This record gives sequence, structure tokens and C-alpha cells, in this order.
Amino acid sequence: MTEALAPGSAIGILGGGQLGRMLSVAAGRLGLRTHIYEPGANPPAGHVADAVTTAAYDDQDSLIAFANSVDVITYEFENIPTEALDVLEAHRPIRPGREALRISQDRLIEKQFLQGLGLTTAPFADITDLDSLKAALDEIGTPAILKTRRFGYDGKGQARISDASQAAEALSEMADAPSILEGFVNFSHEVSVIAARGLDGSVASFDPGENVHRDGILRTTTVPARLSSSQRMDAVLLAANILNALDYVGVMGVELFVTGDGLVVNEIAPRVHNSGHWTQNGCTVDQFEQHIRAVAGWPLGDGQRYADVVMENLIGDDMDRVPGLSRNANTAIHLYGKAEVKPGRKMGHVNRIVSTD
Amino acid sequence: MTEALAPGSAIGILGGGQLGRMLSVAAGRLGLRTHIYEPGANPPAGHVADAVTTAAYDDQDSLIAFANSVDVITYEFENIPTEALDVLEAHRPIRPGREALRISQDRLIEKQFLQGLGLTTAPFADITDLDSLKAALDEIGTPAILKTRRFGYDGKGQARISDASQAAEALSEMADAPSILEGFVNFSHEVSVIAARGLDGSVASFDPGENVHRDGILRTTTVPARLSSSQRMDAVLLAANILNALDYVGVMGVELFVTGDGLVVNEIAPRVHNSGHWTQNGCTVDQFEQHIRAVAGWPLGDGQRYADVVMENLIGDDMDRVPGLSRNANTAIHLYGKAEVKPGRKMGHVNRIVSTD
Repeated sequence: MTEALAPGSAIGILGGGQLGRMLSVAAGRLGLRTHIYEPGANPPAGHVADAVTTAAYDDQDSLIAFANSVDVITYEFENIPTEALDVLEAHRPIRPGREALRISQDRLIEKQFLQGLGLTTAPFADITDLDSLKAALDEIGTPAILKTRRFGYDGKGQARISDASQAAEALSEMADAPSILEGFVNFSHEVSVIAARGLDGSVASFDPGENVHRDGILRTTTVPARLSSSQRMDAVLLAANILNALDYVGVMGVELFVTGDGLVVNEIAPRVHNSGHWTQNGCTVDQFEQHIRAVAGWPLGDGQRYADVVMENLIGDDMDRVPGLSRNANTAIHLYGKAEVKPGRKMGHVNRIVSTD
Repeated sequence: MTEALAPGSAIGILGGGQLGRMLSVAAGRLGLRTHIYEPGANPPAGHVADAVTTAAYDDQDSLIAFANSVDVITYEFENIPTEALDVLEAHRPIRPGREALRISQDRLIEKQFLQGLGLTTAPFADITDLDSLKAALDEIGTPAILKTRRFGYDGKGQARISDASQAAEALSEMADAPSILEGFVNFSHEVSVIAARGLDGSVASFDPGENVHRDGILRTTTVPARLSSSQRMDAVLLAANILNALDYVGVMGVELFVTGDGLVVNEIAPRVHNSGHWTQNGCTVDQFEQHIRAVAGWPLGDGQRYADVVMENLIGDDMDRVPGLSRNANTAIHLYGKAEVKPGRKMGHVNRIVSTD
């Protein structure tokens, strides 16, 4: 346990949403305190944290005070301004490290990194103007999807191009942001691997889950996923490959397309991931505790799965279903304490235990 | 879901120790906020609560402000001063209700209540002076145990009497507190039932666990307990009997001795109970969420157990074992965030998953 945080130590968490909230609970379970840094008022994570700082990411004094109040800093989202990270890192370690953030903040750099590891991605091209977009469409073909290189999530900052004639319109939707064109991948289904790497370099992976999206938002994750045993092994090994290449510390979500020609890496997220929420009711150490263990320098849990689980997100008006869901045996309810229901907003999730081994 | 608290509602919890802490986490999982009321500084529950009031139980202004800030009040321990309850109850409902507290705060009244339900208890007698103690020893015999009627826990306020000649000395240890003499029960082992009753009167029970104490403190609880199927049924039915008689709302711990002549009720605790901690890693809805569901007027979980579990308390220097325990697969660690390790102090517990069904 060299370098392991002792009970009573504090972990700083950048971001006060549901991921920060569930990280905070996991830290508490290990006797660690958390301090949430979040620009927005009344963050969900604040309800279960020891301390909350409400301040902007360009507020240097608040950043420094926050850093000095904790032993290590982690985050629930990858789009943290670089300048804030520079300030924080001068005072406390940030885990996962800067390289993981640099790569995952930019779709182009991320794809290049993955290709450099010998992994398969969707065909892609750097788009700087209409000419480069037209040339890329010639090469990659349609349908294709134009995405901003940075700051996209849940389907935002994306335009689908079904025909080359739509190029100019799609480009205008990017509002001059640097962009990437991605070709479509002919996949049968999407899975994701939630894997972790400890401070000691050890790697542990959860069983891959199978994801279903609707309107660009994750709806369900089912374990076990439909994968052959060799595909399952491939998925876990490629995730370990990515973690090791980044000298990564923490939990990462790796989204994969399953195709007849093997696994294609869709994207990586350097944090706990919505598609790993099933672990709360399927594993002794869930993804949140696994992440806390990693950033705190504790030994990782082994990630073994003891139940078949279907995770379903509760989005917007799905909250109306909670009274009914609360009457179901074998359904674990996880709500995020968000003050207001909005369409498309993730309000909670349920883990339905389908069977136990 | 009539009367069910809506997400965002607040539950007040009297007491800021580990039970309040784990109740607070469970409430958060259901989208509810918690407000901890605790006289001591830096309570463990405060690390994972939305609000904390540090004030004494005779501070009327603080009690009233606390009550008015929440929707319902519950507690993690039964020895709350009656005057404080009177103040609080004028403003918000207290669940479990006053009758359960009145009975469980006094060993004599509790035993009389249990006998009134037709349940078997250890032989007992009300002790008011040395004469009544001597008369009781004549009737009940030795060994016997003299206990204060109120405010005892973890073996405190108790004196064992092996021979009638020790009567005066034992009585002096009670320091003039009203006392009860209890005869010894010839039991093979101790089990406890963690049962819950909802606001709608429905009852759900967890599988009984088998308890091992050392130095008057619970060390381990193992599920399943060594019980015949009829004993298991008896245990659950008698717990339901107690809950219904009290029109109870919440989780209760019922400690039972297993004897050749059937089950003998040792004591009841009108709250979540140390011997129910295994449910965190053995059930979809654990005892803490079950209690929150009850006091919030939600439907109860069904309490079904999916794993064989051994819960072990980490007491005092057991904390030194945490690094080693954290390397064990199938061992879930739960620490309480207490600032200082003291001999006999409950610092955390582990749930070792022995097998899953």
C-alpha cells in the first residue's frame, strides 16, 4: 500500500453531477472524504460530499484553495479547461493524468492515438474547410458523420451526412469549430469495456456490457454482452493496451463496435462511464469504488461479475415510472437528486438483476 | 405511493455515527437529501450528508430549526431524550414512532411487552433495591446478569452475578440506576432478524443472520444462520408480530437465542442494526435503503438474499488489517470515516462474499 491514501484523506472531484455523486459515495465507503468543485449551484454530488466549492474553472484562487484542501484530484468529465488543470496540477496530483485528458478531449487526436496502438477505428479525416470535407467524403463515402473535435457529448455537435450535397450545411452546423469526419461502421451491436489501472500498474476489467442508444443517449446496458469468448478476450486486452499506453490511473470506458471483422474502437472516456453503472449491483467492487481505489493508490478490486444485470437510464419523464419501479423486486433504483426534470436529462438509472450465478 | 416522499425531499436523522452515515448514503441513492442532527463535532454521517446540525438534544431552537428543514425524522439510536422527541414531534413525524422508542429504551418494559405478545424471553425481575435483587436471585438462580433498565449498549451497564454473595457489589455497579435481573438462557447460538414494516403496513424480512460476540461487542454475522426451516419461519413470524404490535414503520433488529426449546427473544432495536450490515453485499435493497424506503413511505424491497456472506466488524486496531483486506477479492470494505482509532471502537466492517446462488 505504498502511496495509498489513509482513511480520512480527501479526494477532490472536478464536476458535481451524478458521476461525481456516485464517486463520492464510493469514497465514503472507503473512509475517504470528498470535496466537489463545480461551477453550477446545488450540484447533485454536493448532497453526499464532505465539502463543495461553487466556483468557475477560471477562478484561480478557488482552484488553489480546492487543491490545497485535498490529497489527490480526479474528475467526472473530460472537458476540463486546460488552464484549470495547469493550476491544479501545480499543487496536487491529477488522476487519471493529463495525457489521457489531452487525447480524449480531441476526437482527432484520440483516433490517431488508437490507430497508433494498432487498434481499428472508424475511417476518419481531419476537416478544416469545405474542400477538405469534400475530399474526405470522396474517400470515406456516405453515410458519414461530421463531429466537432472537442466538447461533444450525448450526440451534440454532430451532423449526419447522407449525401455529399449536404456537406456545406453540415459544416455550417459545426460553427467553425475544428471537426472530424467519421465514416460509418457496419456493426451488429455496441459493447463497452469498463477497465481500471492502479497506481501500481495492475489492470482489472469488468465484463463487457452491451449498449443500446436512442436519440444519441445511452438507454440500456446489458451484461453479459453478446460476444464470443475470443471477442470478450479481445475487448479486455485492447482496453488494457490503451490503459498501459497512457500510464493510466483510474477507470476508463472504452466503447466498441462489434463487426464481422472484429472489434472497432468507437471512443474512450477517461472516467467512470454510464455503461458501467450495472457494476453497482453486479460486482462486489463497482466502477466507482474501483476508480476511487485506483486514484487513492489502493489495490484494485478484481471486477468479477456475480449477476446478470440490465441497466436502464431514467431520462426526463422516465421519473414518472419510479413509483412503479420501486415495487419491483430485483430492481435497484439509483436517483441523482437533480432538482428539475428536463427532456433528455439523465435523472437516475435502475439496475434490474436478471439472475445471479 | 400515497404519502411517499418525492425525490428531493429531506430526511432528518438523529445521530451522526456509522448507522446515520449508511442511512444517508441509502437516502441519496433514492434521490433524497439528509440532514444529520448530532451533538458531537465532525460526525461520520456528516461526510455524506446534505446538511449537519451540531447541537445538543436540549437545544430547543436547533431542534425546531432541524425539524422544519426536513420532511420526516428518523434516528440511528434509541436513547434519544424524551424531551427532544416531544419538541421534534410537534413539527414533523418521527418514524419509527414513539411507542417503539418507549419500549426499547427500557429493558423491563421491553421484556414485559414481548411477554405480552406470547414470546419467550429470558427470566427477568424488576430490581429496585438489594432485597428485591436477593429475592430475584432466589427465584431466577445464578448465573444471572444485572443490567440497568436504560442506556446500556455493547455490554456497558451490566454486571454478571455468578453467586448470590455478589449481589451487593453488582448492585453498586448500577450506581442506583433502575435495574433488571436477567437469568441466563442455555442457548446454542444467537441469530438476529432484520425486519421492516412499511407505512402501508406491509412487512418484509431479511434472512436471519448468526451472530458471534466477543467482549460484549458483535464480531461477526454469518448468513445463512444455522436454523431449521421451521426455526427460520418462526424467527421471521415473531419479528413480524413485534412490528405489527407496535404499528412500526422502519427497520428493526430482533436478537434471538436459539435453544432446544425454541427461540428466545434477547432484545429488540428500533433501528438498523449492526447484524444487518451483510445486506449491503447480499441483497439488492439493503437494510439502510429498506429503512429509508419505510420512513419515506416507499414500497419495501423484498429482502431476498442472493449471496452467502460473513460480515466482520473492524474494531480498534483491526484497522491495521485494511491494507491486507483490500487485496482480497470478494471482500467488500466499509469504513466509517472516524477520525480516531480507539480500543473497542467500531471503525468499519467487511462483508466477505462466501458464495452466490
